[in-house]
Amino acid sequence: MPDQTSSAPRPTLEAVAERAGVSRATVSRVVNGGAGVRAPLVEAVQRAVDELGYVPNQAARALVTRRNDAVAVVIGEPETRLFTDPFFAQQLRGISKELTAHDSQLVLLLVEGTEDYERIGRFLAGSHVDGALVFSLHSDDPLPAIIRRLGLPTVYGGRPGWPGAEDDGNVLYVDSDNRGGAREAVRHLLSLGRRRIATITGPLDQTASADRLDGFRDVLSDADPRLITEGDFTPLGGERAMAELLDRCPDLDAVFAASDLMASGALRVLRERGRSVPDEVAVIGFDDIESVAALTTPALTTVRQDIEGMGRLMTRLLMRGLDQRHGNGTGPALPLSSVITPTHLVRRVSA
Amino acid sequence: MPDQTSSAPRPTLEAVAERAGVSRATVSRVVNGGAGVRAPLVEAVQRAVDELGYVPNQAARALVTRRNDAVAVVIGEPETRLFTDPFFAQQLRGISKELTAHDSQLVLLLVEGTEDYERIGRFLAGSHVDGALVFSLHSDDPLPAIIRRLGLPTVYGGRPGWPGAEDDGNVLYVDSDNRGGAREAVRHLLSLGRRRIATITGPLDQTASADRLDGFRDVLSDADPRLITEGDFTPLGGERAMAELLDRCPDLDAVFAASDLMASGALRVLRERGRSVPDEVAVIGFDDIESVAALTTPALTTVRQDIEGMGRLMTRLLMRGLDQRHGNGTGPALPLSSVITPTHLVRRVSA
Repeated sequence: MPDQTSSAPRPTLEAVAERAGVSRATVSRVVNGGAGVRAPLVEAVQRAVDELGYVPNQAARALVTRRNDAVAVVIGEPETRLFTDPFFAQQLRGISKELTAHDSQLVLLLVEGTEDYERIGRFLAGSHVDGALVFSLHSDDPLPAIIRRLGLPTVYGGRPGWPGAEDDGNVLYVDSDNRGGAREAVRHLLSLGRRRIATITGPLDQTASADRLDGFRDVLSDADPRLITEGDFTPLGGERAMAELLDRCPDLDAVFAASDLMASGALRVLRERGRSVPDEVAVIGFDDIESVAALTTPALTTVRQDIEGMGRLMTRLLMRGLDQRHGNGTGPALPLSSVITPTHLVRRVSA
Repeated sequence: MPDQTSSAPRPTLEAVAERAGVSRATVSRVVNGGAGVRAPLVEAVQRAVDELGYVPNQAARALVTRRNDAVAVVIGEPETRLFTDPFFAQQLRGISKELTAHDSQLVLLLVEGTEDYERIGRFLAGSHVDGALVFSLHSDDPLPAIIRRLGLPTVYGGRPGWPGAEDDGNVLYVDSDNRGGAREAVRHLLSLGRRRIATITGPLDQTASADRLDGFRDVLSDADPRLITEGDFTPLGGERAMAELLDRCPDLDAVFAASDLMASGALRVLRERGRSVPDEVAVIGFDDIESVAALTTPALTTVRQDIEGMGRLMTRLLMRGLDQRHGNGTGPALPLSSVITPTHLVRRVSA
């Protein structure tokens, strides 16, 4: 990713034109979707943009681009997870409601694998949408680099993982207090007298997973490494991780799973192995997804985050930025900044 | 909806320009997305287009529009059903795979309610996508009229319900043999010696539901009307319908439910009421959705349709039409026509 934070001067449109051997007008047209430009020239310009790390001037772009009243939503997960993990449906519900209130169309771009991002980049470059909401990023995800290059207004769901993203005022995101939530869960397990507390993490190339593990370690700084195992946010991943933990540490007396779906898998394995919950093993999840946490046997104690609310906040933040950019804002331009939403423990039966 | 099959001359671009009081060039620009045209003029043209039932000349449009390598998918259901009914995920999987093979981006447009269609129409009119795949239409759905007006290449999933759609060569759709599948299910119940056979239909404003009910009646032309009740394709709807049927006709000995999800709800109610399946009441579903039919208690006998394959076929049909239109087809242009895919009974335990 081009380094935008350095003090070196930002490459100009002229520099791109010179490098590509084309006119300024051609660069401008390519940057704004490429209509009417022959394919070899589009490629030459894109190569120069990549090489120089050029980012179009937002204000200049706003003059030549119309507003489309449409917003792209990109979820960095294959459609099989998108449609089986209620987390995404809940976040999309929040986004959909808020976009409808702004009379803007939700355009969901499905991703099957990394090889799809080039095509998604082309669509995002084509002046079809006013901005993007991007979530479930993994650390090797090529999308943020594409979005920066295009200068497309974007709000991320979950803190992006690249170095410096947290302090970069140009990167907007909405996240939960993942670390604080994990701390609260582990402290609750300690207060119940549990001493061999295990954790099933999410994929550690996602910041939400890493932050929850950090919260676990904040409280249990000397945790036995055999009590920490990586899952994948699915029920099956939770089953596998739980079986592994029980094999490694048969004396464990509590598990903090970094998602409700993984916790539901863990509960299933504990039941199969004859471990009673919460008497022998206390279990806490994360998310508080209604259709999961309240229906497990026993009902799941979990760290609640307001998933639908986060989707709504992401959308509001994006729409506010677009209004300011297009000069439709009412009142003075407010500074836009990222938001961390609170989490809290919801006690049911499992811990 | 304007009648395209009548022999009256089709309204011309000139007629639209005259009616709207604008130039031909303005009409042309509005029809192709409206870039650079002031809002009042756009509205005047759209009104004239509506009033005259104007359909843009496809060939002329192809000259002025670029290909976007993106296809819109519109599912006429609120996002809550979209994400809870595995039918849609399966159909989208087929579409997604096939579009990826054509390097075309799947653009899913979410619909919350009828009031969203105006906005969706605007997006579809904006030259953002090359065509549309539309499914789960209800009979009062405004989308087909919008699509016709735009002249957007479209393939429907399921036979559209307006009069004459079936014989209109300009309307392309992919459907299952719903009627034949229902007949096979009911004949199987008869062969098991069942004589009081009930049915839970889908929403009768959808052709798939009406066709399955027609198949039921083909075999049981003198069915007691109290044995027929309407569901809504959800598990809860199946529960309600089953309870109603048992209250009305306690002597029923079989149920044909027009979807697996409704059948799963029916099985739950039968269990609660102490009716053994299949001994006292035989149950047959429709769809053969893996994550449902094989996992019910007892496992569900059902009419299988190839849902993912239908998604794939819809996409192929659309891409073939687009290739021909843009002159990229290999070999001679083949006539495009709608496809009915076969269904067959999958026997498990419930009947």
